[in-house]
Amino acid sequence: MTRENVIFIATSLDGYIADEEGSIDFLETGKTQEDEDTGFDAFMEEVDALVMGRGTYEAVMSFGVWPYEAPVFVLSRSLEYLPEELSGRAEIIEGTPAEVTSALNERGFDRLYIDGGLTIQSFLEDDMIDRMIITRIPILLGAGRPLFSQMTEPAIFRHVETTLIGERAVTSEYERVRE
Amino acid sequence: MTRENVIFIATSLDGYIADEEGSIDFLETGKTQEDEDTGFDAFMEEVDALVMGRGTYEAVMSFGVWPYEAPVFVLSRSLEYLPEELSGRAEIIEGTPAEVTSALNERGFDRLYIDGGLTIQSFLEDDMIDRMIITRIPILLGAGRPLFSQMTEPAIFRHVETTLIGERAVTSEYERVRE
Repeated sequence: MTRENVIFIATSLDGYIADEEGSIDFLETGKTQEDEDTGFDAFMEEVDALVMGRGTYEAVMSFGVWPYEAPVFVLSRSLEYLPEELSGRAEIIEGTPAEVTSALNERGFDRLYIDGGLTIQSFLEDDMIDRMIITRIPILLGAGRPLFSQMTEPAIFRHVETTLIGERAVTSEYERVRE
Repeated sequence: MTRENVIFIATSLDGYIADEEGSIDFLETGKTQEDEDTGFDAFMEEVDALVMGRGTYEAVMSFGVWPYEAPVFVLSRSLEYLPEELSGRAEIIEGTPAEVTSALNERGFDRLYIDGGLTIQSFLEDDMIDRMIITRIPILLGAGRPLFSQMTEPAIFRHVETTLIGERAVTSEYERVRE
């Protein structure tokens, strides 16, 4: 399988992935169908492992139910251990985006789902994102936690496809073009 | 005709409308067809007047050829006069977004094309934008002049339609939903 690092995330039209309090309630804006197909389940079937930052890990833990079947790697220098119940399902990992990717690739995890604002930003800065699947929700939040941050170098992508979700959200897939 | 204020603008995937030097060369990213239909000409036919800030006005002047058939209103408190050659084609206007809109509507200009980063931002902050036609170019610039800035209140929009330009750029049209 092709090795690639992928992001799959929804943002407001002004580029926020959560409001200032960390809430993602805005994702429901304009929703009229209960059973929208966001493509997330199909996407997850192709994922070998997830890499997320500590903030996202803690947000997921607060849900009360661990939602991932694929192995999760929590990128953290400060976490010392994960709860017993996550044994075999999640572990702590350290290193630069390139180091983490290389370590996971060597362990047979080829397609990595990179998640969480700061984690995505550090992978983008190091040009370690190969594919982006971004869903735009029809709202301007005005403030919040941004998907993108400043980067030292621009990065060109190729548009792969765009689909509509529930006639309200626009999902575009892009792959990195390196020349 | 319905009175509405509209923006029609292209941004990078990370939301910049120009790079740090003000260049818009990134708009060409991935372009393979010389004669892409961006929808701009059709859009302009429905515009009664343009409202732009001083920065955009000066950028347009630097092109050497005045490109607009519709009347242009340059929003500025500091400009004192426009060159003679623009007589009858452009004039200076002052006021808040609501005041400017109201003044132009009274003069029979119903559909206003609001252009320029800071001008768009001030109209959005005052909830004076009714329609947004935004084209996403497949590049992360990493830095530059942002389309959106912080806003005091969120603003919900309805997705109208999404079209592809040259299989590389994604244009989505949104209209403001006020409840």
